[in-house]
Amino acid sequence: MKRIAVDMDEVMAEVRPKLLDLYEREFGIRLKHEDYFGKKIYEIEGAKKIRKFIDEPGFFADLPVMEDCQEVLRELMDRYEVFITTAAMEFRYSLTEKYDWLQYHFPFIHWKNFVFCGDKSIIQADYMIDDHAFNFDNFDGQGILFTTSHNIYEDRYPRVDNWKDVRSYFADKL
Amino acid sequence: MKRIAVDMDEVMAEVRPKLLDLYEREFGIRLKHEDYFGKKIYEIEGAKKIRKFIDEPGFFADLPVMEDCQEVLRELMDRYEVFITTAAMEFRYSLTEKYDWLQYHFPFIHWKNFVFCGDKSIIQADYMIDDHAFNFDNFDGQGILFTTSHNIYEDRYPRVDNWKDVRSYFADKL
Repeated sequence: MKRIAVDMDEVMAEVRPKLLDLYEREFGIRLKHEDYFGKKIYEIEGAKKIRKFIDEPGFFADLPVMEDCQEVLRELMDRYEVFITTAAMEFRYSLTEKYDWLQYHFPFIHWKNFVFCGDKSIIQADYMIDDHAFNFDNFDGQGILFTTSHNIYEDRYPRVDNWKDVRSYFADKL
Repeated sequence: MKRIAVDMDEVMAEVRPKLLDLYEREFGIRLKHEDYFGKKIYEIEGAKKIRKFIDEPGFFADLPVMEDCQEVLRELMDRYEVFITTAAMEFRYSLTEKYDWLQYHFPFIHWKNFVFCGDKSIIQADYMIDDHAFNFDNFDGQGILFTTSHNIYEDRYPRVDNWKDVRSYFADKL
């Protein structure tokens, strides 16, 4: 059975709405799509401090699940080994929060298939679905870029815009 | 640079003394070496409940560092990429406790090189130092068995009894 490694933030879990809320709370402005096109919210000029909130308790606890993610992952698990491979090591509180989040929203995925790491070059899999193209640099398998604001100019990898696209991508794959 | 994946429990961290203490607390007997030869403490007849304590807060927080581990890992890092690859997903509290333990005792290892997982077949490395031979079953690199009571009858892999042995093992390796 081939293996798919699936990232969490901005792939399984929506992070952007929370960052937009934090930006609005801090600066009193609701950002529009064009404000963060091609970048992360905290890469907007003057918004660097927003990144610090990611390190606070609770940030990862209540992120919404990306639309169709549960359904499509459940389908893929009939034909693939699915591993959740998330960069969790930068933010101490994210460890337990991501663990609980997965157990709550994805009870059908065994904890044996959770991987919390830093540098993803350690991951061995056939496919990797991720929003960061740099994770594909040292990956032996096929990288699949999950669209989010910061990666829209990246064109080296097949791209999926949502979980329906993921379903289609794998429909004719082995 | 080649990569070494290093397990934590019973390789970097001594777990047995704590399990022996728990056994003594529960059953009033200090086990002797021959009592747990070839098995884990909680595999001794009637001792199954000892395993439950592993799931309690604090279990992983204060484990002693294995002798010479810091010194030898620091040396190996001059010639290898060292990743800490530990099965942490079964025990929720172990996540933060292992993270803090590593940051405290091994501040010279970057969090990018920490991997908390379940099934280690996801790990891509050239060498893996581990006390569980089953982790080598689907590993493409060279498994190196770190001796502990439960693995003494395993003879399919090169064996190291301590961190001085690890140093010797890698002394003439690329």
